[in-house]
Amino acid sequence: MAAEISISRRLRSTPFTQGVTDHGVKSYTVYNNMLLPTVFRSLEEDYWHLCEHVQVWDVSVERQVEINGPDAFNLIQLMTPRDLSKAQVGQCFYVPLCDEDGLLINDPIAIKHSDNLWWLSIADSDVLLWAKGLATGFCLDVKVSEPDVWPLAIQGPKAEELMTRVFGESVRDIRFFRSEMMNYSGTEMLVARSGWSKQGGFEVYVNDAALGSQLWDELFEKGADLNVGPGCPNNIERIESGLMSFGNDMDFKDTPYECDLEKYVSVDADIKSLSIEALRKHNSTRELVGLVLDQEATGLTVIQNDMPIGEIRSQTWSPKYKKQLAFAMLDFAGTEGQTHVLVCTDDGLVKARIAPIPFDFDALEITAHPK
Amino acid sequence: MAAEISISRRLRSTPFTQGVTDHGVKSYTVYNNMLLPTVFRSLEEDYWHLCEHVQVWDVSVERQVEINGPDAFNLIQLMTPRDLSKAQVGQCFYVPLCDEDGLLINDPIAIKHSDNLWWLSIADSDVLLWAKGLATGFCLDVKVSEPDVWPLAIQGPKAEELMTRVFGESVRDIRFFRSEMMNYSGTEMLVARSGWSKQGGFEVYVNDAALGSQLWDELFEKGADLNVGPGCPNNIERIESGLMSFGNDMDFKDTPYECDLEKYVSVDADIKSLSIEALRKHNSTRELVGLVLDQEATGLTVIQNDMPIGEIRSQTWSPKYKKQLAFAMLDFAGTEGQTHVLVCTDDGLVKARIAPIPFDFDALEITAHPK
Repeated sequence: MAAEISISRRLRSTPFTQGVTDHGVKSYTVYNNMLLPTVFRSLEEDYWHLCEHVQVWDVSVERQVEINGPDAFNLIQLMTPRDLSKAQVGQCFYVPLCDEDGLLINDPIAIKHSDNLWWLSIADSDVLLWAKGLATGFCLDVKVSEPDVWPLAIQGPKAEELMTRVFGESVRDIRFFRSEMMNYSGTEMLVARSGWSKQGGFEVYVNDAALGSQLWDELFEKGADLNVGPGCPNNIERIESGLMSFGNDMDFKDTPYECDLEKYVSVDADIKSLSIEALRKHNSTRELVGLVLDQEATGLTVIQNDMPIGEIRSQTWSPKYKKQLAFAMLDFAGTEGQTHVLVCTDDGLVKARIAPIPFDFDALEITAHPK
Repeated sequence: MAAEISISRRLRSTPFTQGVTDHGVKSYTVYNNMLLPTVFRSLEEDYWHLCEHVQVWDVSVERQVEINGPDAFNLIQLMTPRDLSKAQVGQCFYVPLCDEDGLLINDPIAIKHSDNLWWLSIADSDVLLWAKGLATGFCLDVKVSEPDVWPLAIQGPKAEELMTRVFGESVRDIRFFRSEMMNYSGTEMLVARSGWSKQGGFEVYVNDAALGSQLWDELFEKGADLNVGPGCPNNIERIESGLMSFGNDMDFKDTPYECDLEKYVSVDADIKSLSIEALRKHNSTRELVGLVLDQEATGLTVIQNDMPIGEIRSQTWSPKYKKQLAFAMLDFAGTEGQTHVLVCTDDGLVKARIAPIPFDFDALEITAHPK
């Protein structure tokens, strides 16, 4: 039997929690000490709805770590091996954060508000505390804080249409991974074209709790004919789309290279980053890869040449492609070039194809099926 | 309707999760990215059982932050305003961790293994990252890590008897908040007389996953005639006993003085602590206090002289004392010396007595009732 979640003040609610409850949330996870909905109707119903319509997501769990002061850029650059020296105001950057050993601390989106003011829109770990520790130890002239900001995502193919009805036609001009300050009910809020799905959409960085519930209601009112629904990051959609989850697919013991994030490591740039030296010397045979199984079967241990070579970290049955899809961290030492592995499942050993992330279904000759 | 918890790799399971599931856990919370059971039978049944018998608790969520190296003491002392210069090997210390503003980061138990090796058995925030940031910034000669250790608590009036059956008579010699390395199945493990209840008991710092499940089973086998049961920190018992919960009753915005922790601030000691200067200048009219209501009623906002003066942070109906008990953070500016407040509840305004934490039921003239 599934266990319930016990809610207390420590698992913070959000300005949208009442709306989420009223819309019949069925389950939650906890992320950055905050409630994150995971299912409304069923994982698969939510999935098809996201692929076809538009959803409003309470992603307040994407906490902002604000770095404010003359040393803001220096601190951010210390934390990430990605060269941010050419960042423009309003631009969003996916940045792995890494320690001196090159190991991942988090993988936030960095948003440059001004030369002296940055936000890190974080995944699930207390980046606030790491940044505070570094700022204190290095005597940096910055204030590190967590502002009262609760991102609300509008995701799905009809997201742009719905957003124009609330924020006006100019939202169409926001490019992918760019943001603009936009007016909502007299208050300026950051609006970015981003979100943790590949169905398109926006994230509104709500900075006023009362306006948050007003915006929530307005989106549902104005989107009724678009079949707007409550939603949340969907495990099926995000695995199909190759979106990795910090804590699930990668963690404190992995490097960006092992997690297919080498393009975010500016290994040749002249930057003052804690991790860059370690990453320049990086050497590992571990790699996060995709696995494709022809049958619906969940497993943990992955076998090659009769030996365990790693573990599955996330997995889902894809209703669209009729395949079991997984992300697995595997050690290919001595087995480079092989194309298949075996997965230990409840049904025994099942053969799986190794595939790059994101999955290239065309190259895999896997065809999408209609609902 | 209560929501379920969605379990994924990010919410780490423990060596005892299978045992916990087999014993019919009904709900979980998440603590340090790990599953913490909250209810087995019902909150009240679990409570009475804890007060009368002995329970085995999976408190693996009490993660250890290991600080190892010549600067270990220096780093720990930077993090806490409590003077640790006289700590002895094996001793356990409750230590508020505070930043330069005197604000709380966590409230772990520090355990001194040797001059160069300390553990912080943490509450719910990534102390690991703060310690790593400080160590890096201050160039301290330490390694900061999270070892594979999963504390298992044995709590309740029959805990000592059960422990002797597994670890031998010498466990009786361990004094409160002291620890000893003890042998279990050929492996040395730290055993402390401690735990998050006032019913007495021990915590075993299990350092081998396979031995963990063996120990779990052995405790249930050898405790059958003691009516041993599965358990977990119990919200009724811990509030009755005045045990505060980081994240619930105190958080990043509070100081130790505001949370009744002044005895853990060595304000007159000559220590190199980040927070000691700020705490020496501390000045606040906020205070975490107990509240006692004569009727069963839950609320959030607390009123005095027709004005909101703060919020309830934890609350429970006490089946033993037949009172509603709460911890509330209140601002007594201008209202010092008053003995009562009003709580906004679903049943309207309800009068509450202000009481110190822990509750002194004798002084309050509140009598315990039998089950």
